[in-house]
Amino acid sequence: MLEPDRVYGSYEEMAEKESALPEDERIDFVSIVTPNHLHHPAAKLFMEADINIICDKPMTTTLEEAEELCRITKSKDRVFAVTYTYTGYPMVKQAKKLIEDGVLGDIRKVVIEYPQGWLTKTIEKDGAKQAIWRTDPKQAGASSCMGDLGTHIENMSNYVTGLEIEEIMADLSVFGEDRVLDDDGNVLVHFDNGARGLFYASQISVGAENGLKFMIYGTESSLEWHQENPNYLYLKYGDKPEKVYKHGNDYLEEVAKHNSRLPFGHPEAFIEALANIYVNAARTILAKKNGKEPGKFDTDFPTVQDGARGVNFVLKTVESSKNKKWVDAKYTPPS
Amino acid sequence: MLEPDRVYGSYEEMAEKESALPEDERIDFVSIVTPNHLHHPAAKLFMEADINIICDKPMTTTLEEAEELCRITKSKDRVFAVTYTYTGYPMVKQAKKLIEDGVLGDIRKVVIEYPQGWLTKTIEKDGAKQAIWRTDPKQAGASSCMGDLGTHIENMSNYVTGLEIEEIMADLSVFGEDRVLDDDGNVLVHFDNGARGLFYASQISVGAENGLKFMIYGTESSLEWHQENPNYLYLKYGDKPEKVYKHGNDYLEEVAKHNSRLPFGHPEAFIEALANIYVNAARTILAKKNGKEPGKFDTDFPTVQDGARGVNFVLKTVESSKNKKWVDAKYTPPS
Amino acid sequence: MLEPDRVYGSYEEMAEKESALPEDERIDFVSIVTPNHLHHPAAKLFMEADINIICDKPMTTTLEEAEELCRITKSKDRVFAVTYTYTGYPMVKQAKKLIEDGVLGDIRKVVIEYPQGWLTKTIEKDGAKQAIWRTDPKQAGASSCMGDLGTHIENMSNYVTGLEIEEIMADLSVFGEDRVLDDDGNVLVHFDNGARGLFYASQISVGAENGLKFMIYGTESSLEWHQENPNYLYLKYGDKPEKVYKHGNDYLEEVAKHNSRLPFGHPEAFIEALANIYVNAARTILAKKNGKEPGKFDTDFPTVQDGARGVNFVLKTVESSKNKKWVDAKYTPPS
Amino acid sequence: MLEPDRVYGSYEEMAEKESALPEDERIDFVSIVTPNHLHHPAAKLFMEADINIICDKPMTTTLEEAEELCRITKSKDRVFAVTYTYTGYPMVKQAKKLIEDGVLGDIRKVVIEYPQGWLTKTIEKDGAKQAIWRTDPKQAGASSCMGDLGTHIENMSNYVTGLEIEEIMADLSVFGEDRVLDDDGNVLVHFDNGARGLFYASQISVGAENGLKFMIYGTESSLEWHQENPNYLYLKYGDKPEKVYKHGNDYLEEVAKHNSRLPFGHPEAFIEALANIYVNAARTILAKKNGKEPGKFDTDFPTVQDGARGVNFVLKTVESSKNKKWVDAKYTPPS
Repeated sequence: MLEPDRVYGSYEEMAEKESALPEDERIDFVSIVTPNHLHHPAAKLFMEADINIICDKPMTTTLEEAEELCRITKSKDRVFAVTYTYTGYPMVKQAKKLIEDGVLGDIRKVVIEYPQGWLTKTIEKDGAKQAIWRTDPKQAGASSCMGDLGTHIENMSNYVTGLEIEEIMADLSVFGEDRVLDDDGNVLVHFDNGARGLFYASQISVGAENGLKFMIYGTESSLEWHQENPNYLYLKYGDKPEKVYKHGNDYLEEVAKHNSRLPFGHPEAFIEALANIYVNAARTILAKKNGKEPGKFDTDFPTVQDGARGVNFVLKTVESSKNKKWVDAKYTPPS
Repeated sequence: MLEPDRVYGSYEEMAEKESALPEDERIDFVSIVTPNHLHHPAAKLFMEADINIICDKPMTTTLEEAEELCRITKSKDRVFAVTYTYTGYPMVKQAKKLIEDGVLGDIRKVVIEYPQGWLTKTIEKDGAKQAIWRTDPKQAGASSCMGDLGTHIENMSNYVTGLEIEEIMADLSVFGEDRVLDDDGNVLVHFDNGARGLFYASQISVGAENGLKFMIYGTESSLEWHQENPNYLYLKYGDKPEKVYKHGNDYLEEVAKHNSRLPFGHPEAFIEALANIYVNAARTILAKKNGKEPGKFDTDFPTVQDGARGVNFVLKTVESSKNKKWVDAKYTPPS
Repeated sequence: MLEPDRVYGSYEEMAEKESALPEDERIDFVSIVTPNHLHHPAAKLFMEADINIICDKPMTTTLEEAEELCRITKSKDRVFAVTYTYTGYPMVKQAKKLIEDGVLGDIRKVVIEYPQGWLTKTIEKDGAKQAIWRTDPKQAGASSCMGDLGTHIENMSNYVTGLEIEEIMADLSVFGEDRVLDDDGNVLVHFDNGARGLFYASQISVGAENGLKFMIYGTESSLEWHQENPNYLYLKYGDKPEKVYKHGNDYLEEVAKHNSRLPFGHPEAFIEALANIYVNAARTILAKKNGKEPGKFDTDFPTVQDGARGVNFVLKTVESSKNKKWVDAKYTPPS
Repeated sequence: MLEPDRVYGSYEEMAEKESALPEDERIDFVSIVTPNHLHHPAAKLFMEADINIICDKPMTTTLEEAEELCRITKSKDRVFAVTYTYTGYPMVKQAKKLIEDGVLGDIRKVVIEYPQGWLTKTIEKDGAKQAIWRTDPKQAGASSCMGDLGTHIENMSNYVTGLEIEEIMADLSVFGEDRVLDDDGNVLVHFDNGARGLFYASQISVGAENGLKFMIYGTESSLEWHQENPNYLYLKYGDKPEKVYKHGNDYLEEVAKHNSRLPFGHPEAFIEALANIYVNAARTILAKKNGKEPGKFDTDFPTVQDGARGVNFVLKTVESSKNKKWVDAKYTPPS
């Protein structure tokens, strides 16, 4: 139960009063789970008050804000984690490790799909709260679909493959009547190593639920993973049988096992993936607090730099789509 | 067993000698299953010799050739079928009918994927016959991947949805060392009704086999179908349980049942899909021969116009990719 | 964090000291998660000390013990829940409701499979803790495989269909060298309404993980559910397309939605299923404590009677298999 | 087109007239695809007339008839093939070879399911032709469900594992009103090597279509295959990732490739499986005719002995179920 005198009327009050407490009484971190436009002011305030942050994505609505948070976080030497939940799944970590180990050879193609259908109807007109702010440029920023889903795709791509985007060609659309922000977006991608990418996200893919899925093709083999059935990872070859990795097994990479709680056959899911981000961030916060080195797998969570990279990607898709042109999307966040 | 004196040394000889026979002894039609560059000369010769044609795709390597075949076919009033095999599957016909009947509402998005992996390695250097001609511009034409696979996607899209393409933005790539033709291609599509499309094809998606798959989203519901498990069609809603249609069942649309041979649970596959094109074309040929109207479902096969539409699409992807620009891809074949 | 002076050296000490505390300081319930042979003495002690219980399955190793717990629980008017985890899944509750509502017509056949492979090798010889006690008759009771897995099947069958077993014919086997308890078991079942059943469980089905699965066939339609992909429920008809129910959707039955936490497409899994049993039991405990009626769905958890029914089933399979005969397995637990 | 003077009014006339022709004009073999009770008289007549046979299953309705056919076939040194279609699938042959090669270790458990739902309603009362004879003891023999489906299970088990059945305990049921033959059956099996089996077949499993499926567990690994998606074979281990074999690939065993027609990703199905039995039998017939040894894979089709083994199994299930007892089911057909 929360102590009544630590339940605050505003985030400003919370930042002020908590930071006034001695470090060992003060909250260890703040979770920012507001509409997008409030991420930056809240995060800025708390970080300046020396409080660690776990913040929703997209991290901010402008690149300036994102970069400001990078700089403040650096100057404070605090933890700033961004809840790109889907990279918290054990089998995503298994995929990342297999790629790092060269199992796929050189990556040639990255296809990441993220269809949802919840905005097929204009439910924002009927008072659906999430729909109202996500389709409102004042609260959501320059994009609805790419800001909500596209940024997950970019993060997944970067996390799993390690590749950086060079240029993109985006085609964002607005289907819902009276909407001003995109509710569908398809993006062609060129990566720094010459690989090609195809990212697509949608909020109007009726019947789709939360269909994040990747297929990553290398010169030697390929990987496939589906968020809705997250405990399986498929490794495919051209010249031998497909392998199916399943969560909780001893044959998995150490990082996948470390981020898993249950024995094989006992499925884990979304909550555990999100928890992995929180747990890893919390361990890093604790280590810093105690002046210790974080454990080997503890810093494995999305950072403020990942947040900035995501914001850049979203804004570049908007720019490209508006101009119907390929745009340079290379980006290095302030470290 | 073929009669020895009707086995010919060349297609020219075949066209000459067969057309010299009385109509009821002459072959009913010729199957053209050569590398792409020979489709046009062979087809032209046979059609001019009043012989019906069932021809591989892509129909020709230039649009001029394709349109010439349209015109000759019209003047001869013969049958010219193109073996876009995948539209021969019963469940694809079920999908087309559901869309025609308005079950999906207005189409908003069409995603068609066609990954293959057989050209991951440069097997054309090791003497693989199919690979040699498919990667050779003299035999394959202006494109390998889009010519072989992209044209199937375009045909599937047009057949199932009835939508026409307005403009496209393509990103074709060459991954195999020393190749000159594309072995991977991703295409953004704008349709005439405002729908968006995403077509992607690949020959270097290692581990993929023959992964043609569509997802078509309307305002009311969506459809999904996979060529590798062709007996299932998935109809998804935002507000009620998904429906799974299975081949051979009495509840299917008449056209799906008509193009099916076996009872439910007894799977049908590729050969039967191809056979459906042949059977329907053959029935139409027979009806014409006998001066009768073809049956209700007999003219349901890809025509010379569909072939021309496919050629146009392939060439437009090459143009768009080369210039890195959206191109107008509206096209009406000569009827 | 546990208070150090409430961490006890034995369950006897715990029962004694906790029950000595005033009711509102005392623990609300005790979780019994020991090897099987300790369930009864511990449960008896705590229940006699007026402490509610959430106990692992199989509830006891003999029927006398099970029935004694039924009687004590009744006399104390306390909550005794048994963690048949798998009936905690939302889609299992959806299935139960569809059957109650008559969607399947009269049930004719119930097939429940539960293959595991973790005892394929005799890992109990290598010190694997779980394996040691589960294969030891002193700790596990009369059966390993049926006691661990078969009892889940019986509970699932009874929970979802409401049918009672009349007679069974079991075939239990011991494959692991030097084992004395069954590590595989197959059971033919006759239900009270004339339906037939097939229950099979295994610990030596190498490559299987935790493969609990049911197929329930009625006169009108059938249901299928897989524990390893628990968010889907398949409803099949003979004359119309299969329906796929997916967790988190508004179209689900109220009871399924009530036992769900996340929106559609955000998978839930094992932990949430177990939590549903704990939450419902806890709400009932709280209601009783406060002299209130439990909420509509709060008493939806496996009871001490369900535990007794499970023990009877396990013992009957052992008897039938030993004699290679059908045995009468009708059973009504003391209410 | 059939020659009009070789279209006969009865099988007796056909046998008489065809056998009177010189061997090189005579039909090479006869296909017997009648209701069960006619298999024996027709087969006897043709075999005695020195005509090879490809006969539906179950081969006969009594064991005496089956054994008589074995003896006549032997005396005539002709080919007698039985169309157990499902063992004709390439991936079933792949499974058999993996087991022969010891990949699974010693077989411990064989689970074969074969649910169908087409007799859920008593469609024989509405004039459904297949249903009428299959539920009529005069035409179907002693069993409907086991005779039609159970015999496929027994054949699949024997073909893939090579194990012989020692004893069985069957539970056959009649659900359809006014039916006299079983429409559902579940069988416990003991094999000669100590392995356990579970075979279940059903005609009243509403919503099931043609769900033949096997799971075979050894000491080292297990195999799973589904008839409705026949191009995949799953090999599962306890300590490494599952492998998925897919038809048409070069990595498959020679026998699987030999019985396959299309490249990977181009699905094959029921017709090709049946064709494999016909082709192999036909090649053996041709080799015998020409006094040559059949090719390496040509004799890979179900024989008259396999047919007799199937008949014995069906009759033993009827006997066991009637008496509710385990029965000795060891059987060696006359060779």
